[in-house]
Amino acid sequence: MEYNCLIAQSGGPTSAINATLAGIYSAADKNSAVNKIYGGLNGIEGIIKGKIVDLKPILGEYGNLGLLKTTPSSFLGSCRYKLKSCAENADDYKKIFDVFKQYNIKYFFYIGGNDSMDTILKLKEYQEEHPQGVNLIGVPKTIDNDLMCVDHTPGFASAAKYIATTIKEIAFDTAVYDMDSIVVAEIMGRNAGWLTLSAGLAEDCAGNKLADLIYIPEIPFDVEKLIEDIKKVQETKRQIVIAISEGIRFSDGKLISESDKKDVFGHGQLGGAANHVAEYIKGVLGVKVRAVEINVLQRCAAHCLSLTDINESFAIGEKALQTAVEGLSGVMITSERKPGDVYGIELSASDISLIANKEKKVPEEYINESKNNISEEGLKYLRPLVMGEVNIPHKNGLPVYLSINNFL
Amino acid sequence: MEYNCLIAQSGGPTSAINATLAGIYSAADKNSAVNKIYGGLNGIEGIIKGKIVDLKPILGEYGNLGLLKTTPSSFLGSCRYKLKSCAENADDYKKIFDVFKQYNIKYFFYIGGNDSMDTILKLKEYQEEHPQGVNLIGVPKTIDNDLMCVDHTPGFASAAKYIATTIKEIAFDTAVYDMDSIVVAEIMGRNAGWLTLSAGLAEDCAGNKLADLIYIPEIPFDVEKLIEDIKKVQETKRQIVIAISEGIRFSDGKLISESDKKDVFGHGQLGGAANHVAEYIKGVLGVKVRAVEINVLQRCAAHCLSLTDINESFAIGEKALQTAVEGLSGVMITSERKPGDVYGIELSASDISLIANKEKKVPEEYINESKNNISEEGLKYLRPLVMGEVNIPHKNGLPVYLSINNFL
Repeated sequence: MEYNCLIAQSGGPTSAINATLAGIYSAADKNSAVNKIYGGLNGIEGIIKGKIVDLKPILGEYGNLGLLKTTPSSFLGSCRYKLKSCAENADDYKKIFDVFKQYNIKYFFYIGGNDSMDTILKLKEYQEEHPQGVNLIGVPKTIDNDLMCVDHTPGFASAAKYIATTIKEIAFDTAVYDMDSIVVAEIMGRNAGWLTLSAGLAEDCAGNKLADLIYIPEIPFDVEKLIEDIKKVQETKRQIVIAISEGIRFSDGKLISESDKKDVFGHGQLGGAANHVAEYIKGVLGVKVRAVEINVLQRCAAHCLSLTDINESFAIGEKALQTAVEGLSGVMITSERKPGDVYGIELSASDISLIANKEKKVPEEYINESKNNISEEGLKYLRPLVMGEVNIPHKNGLPVYLSINNFL
Repeated sequence: MEYNCLIAQSGGPTSAINATLAGIYSAADKNSAVNKIYGGLNGIEGIIKGKIVDLKPILGEYGNLGLLKTTPSSFLGSCRYKLKSCAENADDYKKIFDVFKQYNIKYFFYIGGNDSMDTILKLKEYQEEHPQGVNLIGVPKTIDNDLMCVDHTPGFASAAKYIATTIKEIAFDTAVYDMDSIVVAEIMGRNAGWLTLSAGLAEDCAGNKLADLIYIPEIPFDVEKLIEDIKKVQETKRQIVIAISEGIRFSDGKLISESDKKDVFGHGQLGGAANHVAEYIKGVLGVKVRAVEINVLQRCAAHCLSLTDINESFAIGEKALQTAVEGLSGVMITSERKPGDVYGIELSASDISLIANKEKKVPEEYINESKNNISEEGLKYLRPLVMGEVNIPHKNGLPVYLSINNFL
């Protein structure tokens, strides 16, 4: 009986999720315990529909695995499909395990964030009642950096590098005119401020911080304090850059930019926080204010990758394959920072129930005393993650990325 | 008597304007006809106020000239100061030429777009009445690519490369979910569609265009045609990317996103065109639509430079110095594409009156027959411009840019 593996991707795209796919593929290709390597298209939703592709004819072609490693977004497609409990929808579970059986799947890898880990948890619980012998492995990915049991999430570091680079360039752009001005840059992050905090990495050659003020969802947002903070910065500086999370909220818990719409996971649909804050500042201070939304590029700008991120994301994929073959199931690959001054992480695996549906917030010590910027501790945590550049392949002056549409 | 030169920058920042400054500086530093090299801060507005710095102590320091070459935004600061006619404000002219006299300025270089060339034109006309012997040289720069007498403007190519890269990444980002969706990306350009047209450079590995539809100000915008165009694309594709200029307007000349505010040059303050178009599509077609504003990054993303642009911008600076020393005045440095299959440009100088206050639009032959994308001719024009990548220096994982604030 041959043992095959199935890999799928879920949740929002990142610039490093395909490096992890490449890592799993590469390790599986070399491992005699694995025969066929399948990809499930559009996550668990596609698997339910039987959308399975044989990856070897695609990724086995010379050069494609290397291209995949630095291709942004989810090569296999994604979904935001919330698996209901087996009591509510046994049919989904039956279909999934039928597909596993049809393709002789022994190892299943689901690359995703906390919502995707809920899928692994539910499949694990299903197997406890209905043993099928499939080793279920959660593989972390999210730009949000909000997963438990990891030092940081794969994909976060490239997003942080893009954000810090962008904030630096915006600060240079806004400094040219001889007038008072403020830029309010809105960065992704519903509940956790990790991405916004990384704006704090941007410094000029003299070590001056280029994000003058940073506001994250962990700290209740206070408009009076905001104006005080701005006035303080204005004492020494005419052009100011403020970074805010899309998810900043008032002390009563209400979002700056509240909306009634809910997505399928029950999160509010956000956006527009920067516009709200910019309008407020304009009204009170009467200076020129520009709102800039750092858009989807923060999760897909593979032209600005962190080498550390890509290498780690690939290694996490390799570790996932090894963990599956060793017989573990119902776990996610986790990481811990090595002690000492030289940066490095140690990979292992933790029970999925410790991770699914939980969120890791920015700890207090990463925020400065005035609660409006990053602390030295925070910088110490972030700095090694964005180290190293990746020279991605270019053709005709543009990056070359691999698209599965060219193979289907 | 020593002959000194003065360089200033004006208008919106670009990623290549400092490469031109570096080119002028480098050529001046090597030329025995030039003694001191001064920088005027914040353009002509700063010069009127006497804000002059000696550049040799700054740029003569080891490594700084190289850093300057790939630093985005205007190193010397900028202004949007419209010089009135001498009849209206003789005082400005007196102050400017007093400063020239005070610093023994023989060569004046003004790096900017069509509005800045108006300044050179006015100073030239003033000198015709009041000869002062200052050689006045306009040096082109603008991401908008709308200057006459040049094959393309310095700064445009890096912006085009950034836009095409970004559109490619957005297309990959939006393709992941198994659902119909549309992204409307808004790109800068009030009256000329050059930047938006460069979205047409984005292709996948199989040569498929990733910007499915492109709308520019040169073609009157028609919402019924838009819906027809989208339906046509939907016949073969579920996820669609549409690139629009901020300045697209209806056949009656009204902007999609009209505003009453005017900036000092009389241009309407635009923005929000993508939101308008996205809301319209959502209303008519009922699909998921996301508006993305490609923000200020398109003019300052030096982490994504065109090597062709940087090399040419530097060479144009060198040519400017040479032109001034040869005795020309009241001209702008111009360029022409060499005939034949191998790309290259020939630099010369043209009378400033041919350029100031004029705008070059996208010609019809660069647009396809359906008037909703780039033509093969257009691609042939754009492709060589974005060629070549620049490995800019990094420190701690982030680009290193030179700021004049660290020297003042």
